Amino acid sequence: MTSDDTVSLDHGAGGKASHALFSEIILPLFHNDQLAQQDDGAVCEVPAGRLAFSTDSYVVDPIFFNGGNIGDLAVNGTVNDIAMCGAQPLFISVGLIIEEGLPKKDLQKILKTMARAADQAGVKIVTGDTKVVPRGKADKIFINTSGIGIIPEGVNVSGTRALPKDKIIISGTIADHGMAILNAREGLAFESDLKTDSAPLHGMVKSLLDAGCEIHVLRDPTRGGLGTTLNEIAAGSRVGITLFESALPVKGQVKGMCELLGFDPLYIANEGKLIAIVPEHDAGRVLEIIQADPFGTDAAIIGEVTDHLPGKVFLETAIGGRRLVDMLTGEQLPRIC
Amino acid sequence: MTSDDTVSLDHGAGGKASHALFSEIILPLFHNDQLAQQDDGAVCEVPAGRLAFSTDSYVVDPIFFNGGNIGDLAVNGTVNDIAMCGAQPLFISVGLIIEEGLPKKDLQKILKTMARAADQAGVKIVTGDTKVVPRGKADKIFINTSGIGIIPEGVNVSGTRALPKDKIIISGTIADHGMAILNAREGLAFESDLKTDSAPLHGMVKSLLDAGCEIHVLRDPTRGGLGTTLNEIAAGSRVGITLFESALPVKGQVKGMCELLGFDPLYIANEGKLIAIVPEHDAGRVLEIIQADPFGTDAAIIGEVTDHLPGKVFLETAIGGRRLVDMLTGEQLPRIC
Repeated sequence: MTSDDTVSLDHGAGGKASHALFSEIILPLFHNDQLAQQDDGAVCEVPAGRLAFSTDSYVVDPIFFNGGNIGDLAVNGTVNDIAMCGAQPLFISVGLIIEEGLPKKDLQKILKTMARAADQAGVKIVTGDTKVVPRGKADKIFINTSGIGIIPEGVNVSGTRALPKDKIIISGTIADHGMAILNAREGLAFESDLKTDSAPLHGMVKSLLDAGCEIHVLRDPTRGGLGTTLNEIAAGSRVGITLFESALPVKGQVKGMCELLGFDPLYIANEGKLIAIVPEHDAGRVLEIIQADPFGTDAAIIGEVTDHLPGKVFLETAIGGRRLVDMLTGEQLPRIC
Repeated sequence: MTSDDTVSLDHGAGGKASHALFSEIILPLFHNDQLAQQDDGAVCEVPAGRLAFSTDSYVVDPIFFNGGNIGDLAVNGTVNDIAMCGAQPLFISVGLIIEEGLPKKDLQKILKTMARAADQAGVKIVTGDTKVVPRGKADKIFINTSGIGIIPEGVNVSGTRALPKDKIIISGTIADHGMAILNAREGLAFESDLKTDSAPLHGMVKSLLDAGCEIHVLRDPTRGGLGTTLNEIAAGSRVGITLFESALPVKGQVKGMCELLGFDPLYIANEGKLIAIVPEHDAGRVLEIIQADPFGTDAAIIGEVTDHLPGKVFLETAIGGRRLVDMLTGEQLPRIC
């Protein structure tokens, strides 16, 4: 590979090489009117009302894995954060931090995946920034995506709104993403077709809102997994939460890998799943709508909100025991997203 | 320094340590209602119309330097990108990528500076994200800021709108930031009180718009410097540009350092300066308003837009010569912002 095939410090200096990188590699893939203006920011038309605004940086290692790469992970992740506010995502920004020496073909592959993910989610990548740091000062590529979306009038979902007796629904199997990343890491190569679950969830949210479902909380249990996210909700809403172990959807091979390696799937990251917390009377309908979505076929009711021991999450085990599910302590899997 | 005094991988894992970092260090400094919700995104009220949306990642080395640090640089940088769209900045997101081992007191110092810079600019830090990568996989800290602002009705500034006969104004001395960073790097220690010019420019832009000035282009000449930014404008607007060397404001010590080290101040980054390109009839008034701003006292008319050789920038030298100012080729100074 010659130096022409890799990203160099010049590509981040803001001069000729930066412009060549932008106009030859980035713009053709992300083409739209706003980005083509090449101004310092993008101008976006929005209706009056409430915007959802979110940001996430992605530092996943490795950058390519079964079912995706850091690029679609970054787009889907911010699409989902916007969707979890009850909003439809509209515009996305992309901030790249590239380590000198990254092969251009890797960059192109990542950007292509981002463009495809943005198309699939119906969002426009309207503004961006590229920095390059010397070899050894970053690890291949880090991507920040920020996004904005519009929250329809009357929609009010938040991690502070769970109420006792609400039902807790998960949109599918847990721990797929974390185990797929782990499997892709050097030194660990289980024979497995396990893929990341990275997927955009705004369509599922839109179906729920369009059907007029009453939804108290929406969250995507990424870093820290289902266990940590439910702890956040229990604390934010000052309620107790009970989970039913036997109801938790976990793929057989994920369960097997977790047992073998000593991981608890409750703390493993998901990148294409949501938790919906809804009033009991609407739970059946919400479950049906989620199951009808292409990314929700394995959805299940997995627990309920209670009024005892506010802030605590308990698991009723398959053999009838009851154990506290605390927040993740320590680092189960670094650089999972 | 014990391990309690530094940021660890646990702080980025999304579990207990992440929450402690957020609630003990981040939230008290950036306190506001949106951030306190701890949802995946922030909910922001906006009027209907045109939003400006921008993103920038900061990888400056060193992270502390004379006059500021990576934190206020990151806030001011995005405030300025929004302002260069003719918008008033409202909301900002912060994405931190921290290298394991960063002293917590450095993080606190940076975040404090960010909070102060946000206050000064009248923007709210409403949403954020923290990732931690292992030692040697990043360099201390990288910060992404994204921002949104509102563009007043009737305002339409863009790098594509420069017209022949327009005057070009710079809001102050050039190359201060780049030379301050260079001076702060190990091995180079000129006896100097040279400081970064990092500053928020939205107030200056507001004064211009409130006064009803006709403005065609606003840009802040950061990476790549004045020379590269003017080349972008010449290309975007399909016009020629002539600069007058004798009119360029450059501090004596910056000029001296540049001469000694072989740098051209036209290509050195600024972080608190703007270029305004305005019709001839409004140029005097625009200059006066900029000079009345605390960050614009050294403003000057430095050139004009022409209709010959579209896309090219020329410098009329002090001794009467004329030379082409091309875009920056290669990397003058890596990791300047």
